[in-house]
Amino acid sequence: MSLDPFASARDIAAAVREGRATALAVTRLFLDRIEAIDPVLNAYTDVTAARAIEVAQAIDARKARGEPLGPLAGVPFAVKNLFDLEDLPTRAGSLINRERAPATRDAVLVERLLAADAVPLGALNMGEYAYDFTGENAHDGACRNPHDPDHMSGGSSSGCGAATGGGLAPISLGSDTNGSIRVPSSLCGIFGLKPTYGRLPRSRSFPFCDSLDHLGPFARNVGDLALAYDLLQGHDGGDHACARRAAEPVVDGLDLGIGGLRVAVLGGHFDTTGMAAASRAVAAVAKALGAHETVELPGAEAGRAAAFIITNTESAAFHLDRLRSRPLDFDPETRDRFLAGALLPAAWSVKAHQVRRWYAAQAARLFERFDLVVAPSTPMCAPKVGQKTMLLRGQTVPVRPMFGLFTQPISAIGLPVCAVPVAGAGEGSLPIGVQLIAAPWREDIALRAAAVLEAEGVVSAPLPAVQ
Amino acid sequence: MSLDPFASARDIAAAVREGRATALAVTRLFLDRIEAIDPVLNAYTDVTAARAIEVAQAIDARKARGEPLGPLAGVPFAVKNLFDLEDLPTRAGSLINRERAPATRDAVLVERLLAADAVPLGALNMGEYAYDFTGENAHDGACRNPHDPDHMSGGSSSGCGAATGGGLAPISLGSDTNGSIRVPSSLCGIFGLKPTYGRLPRSRSFPFCDSLDHLGPFARNVGDLALAYDLLQGHDGGDHACARRAAEPVVDGLDLGIGGLRVAVLGGHFDTTGMAAASRAVAAVAKALGAHETVELPGAEAGRAAAFIITNTESAAFHLDRLRSRPLDFDPETRDRFLAGALLPAAWSVKAHQVRRWYAAQAARLFERFDLVVAPSTPMCAPKVGQKTMLLRGQTVPVRPMFGLFTQPISAIGLPVCAVPVAGAGEGSLPIGVQLIAAPWREDIALRAAAVLEAEGVVSAPLPAVQ
Repeated sequence: MSLDPFASARDIAAAVREGRATALAVTRLFLDRIEAIDPVLNAYTDVTAARAIEVAQAIDARKARGEPLGPLAGVPFAVKNLFDLEDLPTRAGSLINRERAPATRDAVLVERLLAADAVPLGALNMGEYAYDFTGENAHDGACRNPHDPDHMSGGSSSGCGAATGGGLAPISLGSDTNGSIRVPSSLCGIFGLKPTYGRLPRSRSFPFCDSLDHLGPFARNVGDLALAYDLLQGHDGGDHACARRAAEPVVDGLDLGIGGLRVAVLGGHFDTTGMAAASRAVAAVAKALGAHETVELPGAEAGRAAAFIITNTESAAFHLDRLRSRPLDFDPETRDRFLAGALLPAAWSVKAHQVRRWYAAQAARLFERFDLVVAPSTPMCAPKVGQKTMLLRGQTVPVRPMFGLFTQPISAIGLPVCAVPVAGAGEGSLPIGVQLIAAPWREDIALRAAAVLEAEGVVSAPLPAVQ
Repeated sequence: MSLDPFASARDIAAAVREGRATALAVTRLFLDRIEAIDPVLNAYTDVTAARAIEVAQAIDARKARGEPLGPLAGVPFAVKNLFDLEDLPTRAGSLINRERAPATRDAVLVERLLAADAVPLGALNMGEYAYDFTGENAHDGACRNPHDPDHMSGGSSSGCGAATGGGLAPISLGSDTNGSIRVPSSLCGIFGLKPTYGRLPRSRSFPFCDSLDHLGPFARNVGDLALAYDLLQGHDGGDHACARRAAEPVVDGLDLGIGGLRVAVLGGHFDTTGMAAASRAVAAVAKALGAHETVELPGAEAGRAAAFIITNTESAAFHLDRLRSRPLDFDPETRDRFLAGALLPAAWSVKAHQVRRWYAAQAARLFERFDLVVAPSTPMCAPKVGQKTMLLRGQTVPVRPMFGLFTQPISAIGLPVCAVPVAGAGEGSLPIGVQLIAAPWREDIALRAAAVLEAEGVVSAPLPAVQ
C-alpha cells in the first residue's frame, strides 16, 4: 500500500490486517503530517505521539504473532479535547480545566475505538466549554479551515473539522449540543454524525449542557462514518441519559438504498432563499433523493429559542462556581453567555422544556409523513477568522449565535442527523453541507441516504487546500 | 343488602350486580350522608347529584335488561377538584380557576372509573393549586378531619381524606406531588396509593408541578384500593410523562403474601424518635412485616431540598401570568410560595434536577438489597385547624411545609407508596399512617404488604367520629 492520508479508514485497516502496511507506518505518516501542517491549521492541542507509537507497535506485534486485528486496525483517530484521554487533563477548550488532574481512564467512546485497534493521535482544539460555532478560542488560538486557513473551521468541534478535513485524522470524535458536529462538518467539507440524543454514552467526557449534549464521529466518507458509529454504539451506565438499547448496527445495511422512503425538504425556518451556497447544496441533495415536497417543521423557531435557554441556563448552572471565582480566566466570548445564563429565572428554563416537549410532538407528526427530511447545515460557507457579523436575509447579524440557525432546532429535540458535504455547492475552495434528518433512533435511514448520495457523487469530502 | 356507607366498594358492586341493591339506592345513601355530614367536614366543593342519579339509574336500567355490569357497579366515588369533570370548571382549589369554561370532557381517570360503572358524586376540596399539606383553603374554607372536626384533614387532597375517611365516598381520586395523597391518608385514617411517577395518566387534570405530579386512589381497605388502581392503569397519550407500559394488574396477586421479600425500616432522615404516634405506627408495621433492619436512604434530605426547588420553580413558571395579573386572588398561603419560586434563578432548578438524579441512584442501590421499606407518613397526627407551628425534634417549626418531612423525599424520585392507617397507633380518636415504599413499578409489592397487614389487623380504616 502506498500510504495516503486521505485513504479510507477501512482501506487502511484492511492494509494493516493483510500486512500491506504496518500500523506504525500509518501512524508515523499522520504524525509527520501533523508536524508539518498543524502549525497552520491549529487543530491539535495535544499530540499523544508516544502513546500512538506504542499502540501502533503493539498492534503490529499482535499481527506478527498471527493474532486477529480489529476493524479499525492501525487507523489513527483524534478526539475533541473534552473527551478524557488517559494522562491528559481534559481541558474542554478552557484555561481553567488545564489545572485538572490528568484523566486516569479514557472516555468510553475512546475505549471503544481502541478496542477496534484504532490508534489515538491526541486531543483536538475546540471552542471554550463547547459554547461556540466559530472555532475561535482565546486560549488556544483559532482553529483554521483546511480549505482556506484565513477562514473559520466552524465549532465547537473545530479541531475535528480541521483534522479530518485536513487529512490529519481519518476519524475524529466530537460533540454537538446545538450544531457543534454539523457546523464544522459543513465548513470543513466532511461527514459528521450527530446521533439521536441518548444513543452514544457520554461517560468520561466533559459536559456542556446535559439535556442537549450528543457525542458523535466525523469521517471523510460514509462507510467510515457508519463503521465508526457501529463501533461506538451500546449502552453505558456512566451516562444517565444513555438509552438502554442494544446496538443497532448500520454498516451491513448501508447499501440498501432509500427506495420507498418518503423524503422532503424543510422549508419555513429552514428556507435558504438568498443564501446561494446553501440553496445549491439543498437543491442538489433534494434532486438526488427525489424530494419534491417542501414541508414545514412547525415550532422550529420556538424550539430553537428553547434550546438557547436550556443551553444557557444549564451550562451556567454547571459553571457557576468557576464563574464566581475565576471570571477573568474564561474566554471573553463565552464568559458573557454563561453570565447571562446565570441571571435567568428558573421559570424561563421550565417553560423552555415545555416548549421543547410541544415542539418534539410536532416533529413526531412530521415523521409520520416522511422518513427523512433535508435541511441546510449552515446558512453559508466559512466566514473569515475574526469576522464578527454576517449578512443573513438582509440583516447584519452576529456570526457566533447565528451559525446555528439550521442546526439548533434539530438537536433541540435530539433527532439523528448525518451531515454531508455537497460536492461543488460551496464558494471557491470553501465547501458547504446539508443535514439528512431522520426520526429518533433512525440513524440508519440518514446514513443510507448519505450512502446513496455518495454513490451518485453528490456528496464527497474535497481534498484540502493545505497540503 | 342493608346499605352501609362503610361497606367495601367490592361488596357494594357485588350487591348491585346481584340485584341485592340498586345503584340508585346506594347513590342516594351517599348523597343523603353528604347533605347531613358535609356541612361539618367541608369535603365537597361540588356535589353532582343530578349526574350521579342519572348514572345510577342507567346502571340499574342495564341491570334490569340483563346486561353485565362493571367491577365498580354502583360504587360512588368523588375526585379532588383538579380532575376535569364534564360541565364543571376545574377549580384546583383556587378562586381564579372558577372563571374557567366548564370542562367538556372528564379526566381520563374519571372516564376509567365510569367505564367500570362507578357513580360520580362530585368534586372535592383541596389546597389551592395543590400547594398544601393542611387542608385549609382561603376560598372554600378548611376541610375537616372526620375523626375530630377541630383538626385538619391534611392536604392537599383534603377532600379525599375527609370524604373517604368520613364515609362520604368509598373511593376517591387525588394527586400527590410531595405527599398530598399520603398526608391526608395518614391524618384521616385511610389507604392511599401514590403509584410510580408516570404510571397513571394525568390527562385532563390541572397540574401543580409536572416533574412531580402523581395521581392515585384512596379507599377504606386494601382490596378496594387495588381494584381501583387496576381499573385506572394503562397508558394515555395525553400525558407526556405517562409510561408506555401495559397495565400490570395487582388484584389477583394481592394475597400472595410477602414471604421471601426483604423488608427494612428507614432510619436517618426518617427516624421517629420523640414522635410517639409515628413511632408506634412504624413499630407495629415493622414487627408485622418482620422488618428487623433499619437502613439509611442516602441523600433523602438533599432529595427533599431538590423537591422543594423543583416544586417551587415549576409551579411558579406555570402560574406566572396569574401571579402577575391577579396576585390578590391567590390564597395568601400559596401566593407567597409561588412568588418565591418566580424569583429563583434557573441554576438552582438545574442543580435540583441533578441532585434528584444522584439521589435516585442511591435509592436504586437500596432496592437492590430490599424489596420494601417502611417509613412514617407524617411526623404526628392531625394538628388543629388553624395551627401554624408544631414541635418537631425539639424545634418549633411551621406546619405547612414540615408535614411533608417524610413523604417529600419519596415522591421526589417517584417511588410507589401504599399509605396505610395503623390501627391504634394514633392519639385519641386521631389516626396515623405509614408508607410502604417499593422500587419503581413495584406497586404490587407495596399493595401485597398492605394486604398482609390488613389480614393481620395491623392496619385498618377506623370509623369516623362524625356520623
